[in-house]
Amino acid sequence: MSATNKTRAILLASRPQGDASLSNFTFTEEQIPALKQGEIQLKALYVSVDPYLRGRMNEGKSYIEPFELQKPVASGMLTVVVDSKNAKFKNGDVVFAILPWKEIQNIDGEDINLVSLPVSADAKDLSIYLGVLGLTGLTAYFGFLKLAKPKSGETVVVSGAAGAVGSVVGQLAKMMGCKVVGIVGSDQKVELVKSHFGFDAAFNYKTTKDFSAAIKKHCPQGVDIYFDNVGGDISDAVLDNINKFARIIICGAISIYNATTLPLSAQRIPRILLVNSATMQGFLAWDFNQDFPIAVQEMSQWLKEGKLKYKETIVNGFENIPQAFLNLFKGTNEGKMIVKL
Amino acid sequence: MSATNKTRAILLASRPQGDASLSNFTFTEEQIPALKQGEIQLKALYVSVDPYLRGRMNEGKSYIEPFELQKPVASGMLTVVVDSKNAKFKNGDVVFAILPWKEIQNIDGEDINLVSLPVSADAKDLSIYLGVLGLTGLTAYFGFLKLAKPKSGETVVVSGAAGAVGSVVGQLAKMMGCKVVGIVGSDQKVELVKSHFGFDAAFNYKTTKDFSAAIKKHCPQGVDIYFDNVGGDISDAVLDNINKFARIIICGAISIYNATTLPLSAQRIPRILLVNSATMQGFLAWDFNQDFPIAVQEMSQWLKEGKLKYKETIVNGFENIPQAFLNLFKGTNEGKMIVKL
Repeated sequence: MSATNKTRAILLASRPQGDASLSNFTFTEEQIPALKQGEIQLKALYVSVDPYLRGRMNEGKSYIEPFELQKPVASGMLTVVVDSKNAKFKNGDVVFAILPWKEIQNIDGEDINLVSLPVSADAKDLSIYLGVLGLTGLTAYFGFLKLAKPKSGETVVVSGAAGAVGSVVGQLAKMMGCKVVGIVGSDQKVELVKSHFGFDAAFNYKTTKDFSAAIKKHCPQGVDIYFDNVGGDISDAVLDNINKFARIIICGAISIYNATTLPLSAQRIPRILLVNSATMQGFLAWDFNQDFPIAVQEMSQWLKEGKLKYKETIVNGFENIPQAFLNLFKGTNEGKMIVKL
Repeated sequence: MSATNKTRAILLASRPQGDASLSNFTFTEEQIPALKQGEIQLKALYVSVDPYLRGRMNEGKSYIEPFELQKPVASGMLTVVVDSKNAKFKNGDVVFAILPWKEIQNIDGEDINLVSLPVSADAKDLSIYLGVLGLTGLTAYFGFLKLAKPKSGETVVVSGAAGAVGSVVGQLAKMMGCKVVGIVGSDQKVELVKSHFGFDAAFNYKTTKDFSAAIKKHCPQGVDIYFDNVGGDISDAVLDNINKFARIIICGAISIYNATTLPLSAQRIPRILLVNSATMQGFLAWDFNQDFPIAVQEMSQWLKEGKLKYKETIVNGFENIPQAFLNLFKGTNEGKMIVKL
C-alpha cells in the first residue's frame, strides 16, 4: 500500500488532572479504509482549537459527550473533498464539520453535520469560516445581540476581550451604540482591543490588583451587560458592579477549565441577581442553528464594509495541534487560534 | 390630650446577628401630631409580614434601604382613612402602602406610593389585597408568567410551595398545562399543596435525606422551570436536575436570610447555566408596576371563577407583629402571613 493510504491521528491518551499537557495526547498512524458508496474523503485544511475542548477531556457529561480515551480528539475543521462516492459532493468542495483530528478521513456524505461552504479550498481568507464567520463569530453574534439585547448608551464589559469571541462582541457593542470595556491578559492586548477593535477602554488583569476598583473606574455608570468568557475572580468583581436589570451572558469560563477545585466566591450569585433584578444566562451558538445563514450573511456584510475586523493566530502543522490548544490557556493568541495543515 | 392622640409603634432596636428574635424589636408609644393641610390620617387594619424584611434589618443596601435603628420597621399595610385634609381621600377609604408599623399615622395624601382600593374597610376578604391580590400574588404572576414563560407540558418545581407566593405559582403552572412539584416543610403542607392547590406532587424537605434523588424521582423528565423562594441546599439539588433551556427564577432565599455565612455549593452556577443553556433571573414584582392593574384584574377573575385559591394565616393584635414575622422562618404559616389589628 502507498503512503497516501495512511493518515496521522491525535488521540486522547489520558484525562488531565488540572492543567492539560502534551502528555494527554498521543499520535498514531492508521490506514485509510477504501471509500464506500455514499461516502466522501476529506482532507483537513484548517483545524480550530477552542477552550471548550478542555471540558470534553474530562469524564462526565457537559453539553456534549466527553472524548473517549484512546480515541481521536475532535473539533471544528475546514476540509476539502479529495474523493467522493456521494452525488452531493465533488472533489474540491470545501466542507466544515466537527471532526476527529485526522489528516484524511472518510465520512458518510449524508451526515447532517457537514456544512458545505461556497468558497474554494485555496481562498485567501478561508480560515474566517473557523473564526469570525464560524462558530466563534456566531457565538458572539447570538449571545450578544439575541440574548444580551443591548441598548444604545449601555455599558458593556467583555472578558477575554482580545479572543475570538470577545473581540467580535466588543465590535458589535460599538455598532449598537454601547460603551465597551475589555478585560485582557497583556498590555499588548489592551492596545489591540482599543486601537484595532475600537473598545472605549481596557485593562490588563494580570497587572491589576483590585479588579472591582478597576471595573468601577472604567464603568462609572455601572455595568449593564457582562459578556463573560473567563469566569472566576474577574467575573465576581464585575458582578459587584452591575446595574439594575443587568444581563450576564455566560459564554465560557477559561480561567477555571483547568481548575480541580472551583472558586468559592460565586456563592452570592442568586442574591446579586435578586437584588438587581438581573439575569444570568448560559448558551451555545448551536442553540440558534436555524438562524446561522442569516447571521453569516449579516456578519459577511459588516466584514465587507469594514465595520467588523478580526485577528487570527495561525499555527502551522498537524503535529502542532495539541500545543496550539494548550497555548489558549496561556493567552498567547490574539483573536482566533487556528492550525493550518 | 386624650388617649386617642397616641399610637403604638414598633422600632428596630438592634440588628440581628444570625436569627432575628423578639429582642431586635422594641415597642414605643408616641403622640400623633395634628393633621396638616394635605395630609390624611390612616388607621392600620392589616399588616403584611414578609421574609424580605429580614434583609432590611441588616446594614447595607439591598434592593431597598435598610431599616434605621430606633426607627419604625415598615411593611405593606391595609389602612382606612379616619381623617382627611386632602381632597383625594375621604373617611372610610381603604389605602394600601408600605408604612411604618404604627397603629395610626398621618401621611401626605400626595405620596405616590398610596394605592386606593375599591373596597370597604369591613369587607370580608379585604386581606386578599395583602396576599393573592397584593404584592405576593403579583410576585407570583409576573415572575412565573412573564419571566419563566411556561409552556404546556413543562415540569415546574416550586420551593416554599405552601407559602404566599409559591402556592399561587403552583396554581398558575397548572393553569398553563404544566406538571408542578412542590417542596415544603411539613407533611401537612404536602397534603395542602396537593389537595387544596392542585400540585401534581410534593415532598417534605425536612424528612428527605437526598434532595437531588427526590427531585429526580418526582421529575423524571427533568426540571424546566424552578421558581425559587428558599435558596440554599434545596436549590442546589434542583439545579442538578435542570433541563436544557431551563429557567430559574430567583424570587427569594428564606433559607439563608438569617445565615451569617453563605452556603458554598452555589459556586457551580455559571457552569450549570452554560452546560444547559439555562437562565437564572432575579426580579421584584415592583419591576412590573405599570402592569399591576391588568394583573389584579386577571387574578380577580380567576379567583371569582374558582381557578385560583388562597390560604392565609391570620394573627391578631398589633403587639404580635414581631412574633408573626419571626414565625415565617419557622414555616408555621400556610399561605400569606397577615396580622389583623
